[in-house]
Amino acid sequence: MVVAIEKVRGFREVYPEESEPRKRIFETAEKCSVMFGFRKIEMPSVENLELYRAKSGNELLEQCFSFLDRGGRELTLTPEATPTVARMIGTRKDLAKPVRWYSFQRFWRYEEPQSGRQREFYQLNADIFGPDSAEADGEVAILACTILNGLGLEGHYDFLINDRILMDHLLTSFGFKDRGSAFALIDKFKKMDRAEFENALGEAGLTPSDLKKFVNLLEERIPIESISSLLSREEFQKIPNEVKERIVKLSEILTSTGFKNIFFDLSVVRGLAYYTGMVFEVFDTKRKFRSIVGGGRYDSLVELYSGARIPATGFAMGDATLELLLRDVGKFTALTPTKSYFIAFPNRENYPKVSELLTLIRSHGIPAMSDVSGKSFSAQIRDADREGCTHLIVLGDKEIESGTVTIKNLSTGEQETVSRIDFLNSISL
Amino acid sequence: MVVAIEKVRGFREVYPEESEPRKRIFETAEKCSVMFGFRKIEMPSVENLELYRAKSGNELLEQCFSFLDRGGRELTLTPEATPTVARMIGTRKDLAKPVRWYSFQRFWRYEEPQSGRQREFYQLNADIFGPDSAEADGEVAILACTILNGLGLEGHYDFLINDRILMDHLLTSFGFKDRGSAFALIDKFKKMDRAEFENALGEAGLTPSDLKKFVNLLEERIPIESISSLLSREEFQKIPNEVKERIVKLSEILTSTGFKNIFFDLSVVRGLAYYTGMVFEVFDTKRKFRSIVGGGRYDSLVELYSGARIPATGFAMGDATLELLLRDVGKFTALTPTKSYFIAFPNRENYPKVSELLTLIRSHGIPAMSDVSGKSFSAQIRDADREGCTHLIVLGDKEIESGTVTIKNLSTGEQETVSRIDFLNSISL
Repeated sequence: MVVAIEKVRGFREVYPEESEPRKRIFETAEKCSVMFGFRKIEMPSVENLELYRAKSGNELLEQCFSFLDRGGRELTLTPEATPTVARMIGTRKDLAKPVRWYSFQRFWRYEEPQSGRQREFYQLNADIFGPDSAEADGEVAILACTILNGLGLEGHYDFLINDRILMDHLLTSFGFKDRGSAFALIDKFKKMDRAEFENALGEAGLTPSDLKKFVNLLEERIPIESISSLLSREEFQKIPNEVKERIVKLSEILTSTGFKNIFFDLSVVRGLAYYTGMVFEVFDTKRKFRSIVGGGRYDSLVELYSGARIPATGFAMGDATLELLLRDVGKFTALTPTKSYFIAFPNRENYPKVSELLTLIRSHGIPAMSDVSGKSFSAQIRDADREGCTHLIVLGDKEIESGTVTIKNLSTGEQETVSRIDFLNSISL
Repeated sequence: MVVAIEKVRGFREVYPEESEPRKRIFETAEKCSVMFGFRKIEMPSVENLELYRAKSGNELLEQCFSFLDRGGRELTLTPEATPTVARMIGTRKDLAKPVRWYSFQRFWRYEEPQSGRQREFYQLNADIFGPDSAEADGEVAILACTILNGLGLEGHYDFLINDRILMDHLLTSFGFKDRGSAFALIDKFKKMDRAEFENALGEAGLTPSDLKKFVNLLEERIPIESISSLLSREEFQKIPNEVKERIVKLSEILTSTGFKNIFFDLSVVRGLAYYTGMVFEVFDTKRKFRSIVGGGRYDSLVELYSGARIPATGFAMGDATLELLLRDVGKFTALTPTKSYFIAFPNRENYPKVSELLTLIRSHGIPAMSDVSGKSFSAQIRDADREGCTHLIVLGDKEIESGTVTIKNLSTGEQETVSRIDFLNSISL
């Protein structure tokens, strides 16, 4: 009797054709994080649902993949990293600051599955704890760009940055009655009908002339190196100097990288209530997909979870939208294969000799494989190709007797017979 | 108000001191798998509980971290890889055999947490689908050893191997009434009191003289290269020749590696009902911990899940026992750090220049970091050490003006001032 149990809706089985390009995403994200001095942490996949009641708001709570465990406890598959990371950093009061942490693991949301959104996804989280500085903000922003550039996405994304303190002052100067709901409204600016948005601004307390000015500001996208000229405009006259100076400082840091796609964008405010300074989002240049990266400064959140006041800045980058964009621009490709050997042998009796040579090649860290099915010699040679090996080794009776190997470069077709010892010495270099 | 929500019992928060040695485990396991020509797959973390009702038996079912989802479906966090992998290989009938797959991800069991057993763990799974051959069995066994040796565990573990078909014949020739319950009994041999075990053998149908002979066989541990002399003994006379030949063939393959710790052990049968040939387990030499690796051949299982009869052989290696053993033998260590730079700068105003240099160094794939907290110059130099960087770069006003950098090797103390261009050229090599 066959047990035909399908996978659960919203979950994904990934075969090698897709997992290998995905591995390039994972490895690039981790390698860049290490390159920036971030150290890895691992977090549980299951938390008390209560953890997300505190600050995350109803929307996230509704998306939690939650359940009752056998002991009747209200648990959930983790929907995001931040509350757990905040608890972890608050627990370890011994750690010298700054602390740079990254994690790379799965999260879950009980949402309706659609393109670029499964119920299960991987996410890189990277945060700097300790300093409340433009330098720390700059490092996390540059790390996000470096990962995307490392994946070959330069020119295919826009990095959009803003500052919540600046926005606070700006909203006050424009006469918004309630800043909290103003942020929620601005967060929808790009998705809303313009007339509808302007109506809502009116309801929020703006005069008709201010309303136009405000919408114009939200529509602008200022290259990061030109931020000073934006901030010197009339609309920003009432913003305190230290707020402007902090933003200029960050812009100088970001400009130093030479990255050409970083823009100041006043419409980027991030929905989440906990941001307290810099905020940023990354979108593909054609705006076909949801945001690829979201992040910012959150100086009050750790205190909420641990009692320890520790400023923090960081971001999250999910695999789903990133994969869509990489596919869209033809960069969803595996890592370039390194040198690898396929040993073909006409006589199955010789397999222990084949196995011995496989072990010796692999002892140098070099991929090597051979037939394990008793296939014909010609079928083995086809398999060498199918498996994507770069070199074919022929180990026939003649070669075994004379202590040699015949090696063929499968891309150039070059072929040579050398002594086994010389071959092994040559690959150990 | 502080939200003090503890982590859930049986789940673990891993800080960098531990995650970095763990990363060495993960990377070694993946790198070796790739070196053997295995390709990665990813599996869902959530499955229908029904999937495990089919073959896993009540014990596993009881250990499932199961729950009802919002739609009232009986789901579970995945307790093991095999049923999912079997479904995946059965689905892809287009794939040319042999198929070598590995996966590396989290699994869950609702067991009582204890040393070396959490409710959440990572597991490497590696399988070859297609051939029913000693060569394929050899490859998965050698892969398991290669990973352990790659972690520095040579001499600290025993690889114990056996064959279920051989055991079937042996049990018949010894007159066991019920082979299924005999396997379950033998599986407990190492854990049971000897008198109690012999009693149970008597109840299973063995005569007093056969009983002693059988226990003696279970107590032996034969180096794999001596298997022929074992199989030529009187007790194995009734075993069909093709069964013995297959085992001798596997032993020749394993002997070819030169690994010294592979033993044939008739007490290793693996509890799971689905094994149909080779079985193996790995234990630490001092037998302090639970098994580190378990595997074997399972030729009928894929058919059960997919209707396609596809022979298979493979193993699972968990992180928990492996971590305990690595700690026990002093090998729970991080990867050797590569060259990394810490830029110290006395004048905070110069940070954009620091950031620019960081970007240039990192563009060569080399780790680099600097202060982001406005710390004093001497505190920065202490941080370079604390962060484990190998080289310190001093970027003072003088260096910036003259286009130079002063570089200090933090292990040798050597220091030199060179032009920025020469420095960047030298690291790009």
